[in-house]
Amino acid sequence: MIQNEDVQLGRSQKGQVTQKLKFYQEEHRRLTVLFNITRNISTELKLDKLLYILMDEVKKALKADRCTVFILDKEKNELWSKVAHGEAEIKFDRHLGIAGYVATTGDILNIPDAYSDQRFNRDIDKQTGYHTKNMLTFPMRNKRGEIIGVFQVLNKYEGAFTKEDEQLLGAISTISATQIENAQLYEEQKKTFDSFIETLASTIDARDPLTAGHSKRIAKYADCIAQEMNILPNRREIIRYAALLHDYGKIAIRDAVLTKRGRLTVEEYSHVKEHPAYTQSILEKINFSGDYTSIPFIAGAHHEKMDGTGYPKGLIGEDIPIESRILAVADVFDALTSRRHYRNRMELEKVIGFLEENSGTHFDHNCINAFKKVKLDRILLILEDDSADFIDHADLSLLGQYNILELLDRQNGKARDAEDRLLSMTFNKYYNKTYANVSY
Amino acid sequence: MIQNEDVQLGRSQKGQVTQKLKFYQEEHRRLTVLFNITRNISTELKLDKLLYILMDEVKKALKADRCTVFILDKEKNELWSKVAHGEAEIKFDRHLGIAGYVATTGDILNIPDAYSDQRFNRDIDKQTGYHTKNMLTFPMRNKRGEIIGVFQVLNKYEGAFTKEDEQLLGAISTISATQIENAQLYEEQKKTFDSFIETLASTIDARDPLTAGHSKRIAKYADCIAQEMNILPNRREIIRYAALLHDYGKIAIRDAVLTKRGRLTVEEYSHVKEHPAYTQSILEKINFSGDYTSIPFIAGAHHEKMDGTGYPKGLIGEDIPIESRILAVADVFDALTSRRHYRNRMELEKVIGFLEENSGTHFDHNCINAFKKVKLDRILLILEDDSADFIDHADLSLLGQYNILELLDRQNGKARDAEDRLLSMTFNKYYNKTYANVSY
Repeated sequence: MIQNEDVQLGRSQKGQVTQKLKFYQEEHRRLTVLFNITRNISTELKLDKLLYILMDEVKKALKADRCTVFILDKEKNELWSKVAHGEAEIKFDRHLGIAGYVATTGDILNIPDAYSDQRFNRDIDKQTGYHTKNMLTFPMRNKRGEIIGVFQVLNKYEGAFTKEDEQLLGAISTISATQIENAQLYEEQKKTFDSFIETLASTIDARDPLTAGHSKRIAKYADCIAQEMNILPNRREIIRYAALLHDYGKIAIRDAVLTKRGRLTVEEYSHVKEHPAYTQSILEKINFSGDYTSIPFIAGAHHEKMDGTGYPKGLIGEDIPIESRILAVADVFDALTSRRHYRNRMELEKVIGFLEENSGTHFDHNCINAFKKVKLDRILLILEDDSADFIDHADLSLLGQYNILELLDRQNGKARDAEDRLLSMTFNKYYNKTYANVSY
Repeated sequence: MIQNEDVQLGRSQKGQVTQKLKFYQEEHRRLTVLFNITRNISTELKLDKLLYILMDEVKKALKADRCTVFILDKEKNELWSKVAHGEAEIKFDRHLGIAGYVATTGDILNIPDAYSDQRFNRDIDKQTGYHTKNMLTFPMRNKRGEIIGVFQVLNKYEGAFTKEDEQLLGAISTISATQIENAQLYEEQKKTFDSFIETLASTIDARDPLTAGHSKRIAKYADCIAQEMNILPNRREIIRYAALLHDYGKIAIRDAVLTKRGRLTVEEYSHVKEHPAYTQSILEKINFSGDYTSIPFIAGAHHEKMDGTGYPKGLIGEDIPIESRILAVADVFDALTSRRHYRNRMELEKVIGFLEENSGTHFDHNCINAFKKVKLDRILLILEDDSADFIDHADLSLLGQYNILELLDRQNGKARDAEDRLLSMTFNKYYNKTYANVSY
């Protein structure tokens, strides 16, 4: 009897326990997937990278061959996505295709056999060479229930997508929506900040017509130099901000002095020379954090010279931040290569000659050397930023093969062959704007 | 035989299955807690709110009476936290107490009986009246392994904290660290942006000594009006930015004209009147997103008048954004109440009289009415923002009980009693700065 009871009890318990175990195992798998995805996406506030991580994670979690996350751009009425591991973007009208249908209706579309479904657009397979078998397309909603994008998963390895896959993707899309909105917010904030600084820089430059566009250009030249010097991206960002803001102190300079044509009096000149100190003291009032705290000092030191004869502090050599030494080269290069209404630019050879003569005294030798290694296409696009549309693509790709040093070598009476002469002609056509038959 | 095998098989399987079930149930509980916490914190980018949510969730997850999250401020060498459901902050040296010990060493401290542990500081219980029984203190590390704060959980309901509690809190602290750093980054970015705009506003104001501090003050007056009009926080933020930037277009006004004392010529006056249009066109170049896109238009319309006689567009009535109508009142109020080196402020009665006379023609009647309802302590703190330290606390609390309208009623020959006279005297002591015996 006892044994018999035990057997019966054992059997019924075993059944219950096994059922429970199955439930918990399934739940465990689901939660582990969700938790891991959450952990992997939560540190990523860069939208591009976030999308790549998501596409990869969802593909693995649903045991499928491909996943694409489409983001809804409400202003442009578009769905867009990144192509995995490429720089390319896909963009189309927010109502087009199956993704568009799901983004518009909010329906979940689980299509077990794409080619027997009317809504499937075979043209895409034709274009890409991919063969879609089954697909699961799921709307992504934020906490307010608004559709902010679409998940599309293609070709589950074993059979079609199940109800459980739909549920799992539903949970993933809820988590993803939050992080995508965080990333969007963060990027918008950064973009606004960036364009704000650019706008102010242009505004300051615009007070003196001679310096229009100056701050943006020196930001770009400085970045070229910084790249040649292998300066890390976070420092390059600082150089960019410091460049854009380096002349902000000019707001404190009387415009009669700032825009005076002709020679300045001693008093006027010393007033103008106050601007980097103003730049620093104004920027110091800003609550910069982390690495950005160095921006005021860097921006304020762009008129310092290696031999200590610069201003405002007369700093010497390495006491001048490397970022400011880079700005100094970019600043002077832009001043010398700017057109005036009464004359064309100074010849490039003379400009570089001037920089070299003052290398070691005014400029840092390393910065000058780095600058001479910058490729000509990059230089030209900055020099001619206001008329870049007139530059021929073929010309740009030729110029992209040579740097400043190589151009000057070939110009300097040493042109060896037709290609050397072509290089020089091509560069100077734009540098002197002879293509436009403009006379200065 | 068959039965016997079945029984044996059943027993051994049952044991395995039950063991597995236990494991999965435990894991399920742990993952569910983690997943729910993650979901609840991931939408929160405001650090204060994030900390409240975390403290609440951890308390529940560990079945304990209290939880505090301390954040490490490396610059100030402090640990700080929010007191749950209060505005108060706790702050102390980063090395002090058990939290300080854990923040410094990175050790986990699981103290089953606080009063028998040397490291426990009984004074805190004495001060707060709380009785600490057991406590678990855990370092919070970011992805780079750096300690960014400390979790402290007090008084587990049943017995002391276990090894499993330690493991669970470890996982929670990893997730939390990520979201806390995201929130910190977001807040830092916003703070930088904010201080940037404030700095630029002061810089523009500083070009003309008469207008120093003007933009910050009108931002504050405008916010007072907006609050009286029950304008929502997100619109109030827009008013604040528009106020800070409303005069930015003055950067395009020649300083000989801007700072001229005495009467302007017709040409000069029309040049000055160009500034709101410049403000709008400069701000329009900024990549504002969402609600912020209205900032340029709002800032550019602060000289419009209800009857259409304003500039630059001559907008009429409701065509002027409500935010600009608020700015208009704040702007004129600040101009009329600013001290000049040769005279004191215009009497408040006259200032309000001027606003009322022009209510409906220049100003929006609703804005004027709202302004008159602003409490006197708030008005005074803005009027006297550069010498707020001289204002007595008792005086402020008296002034906080009356608004502008009530003050003027009582001043206007209708003072009924000693308190009415005291109110008027108190306000005017600061308004006219008679406490300092300064003569203008």
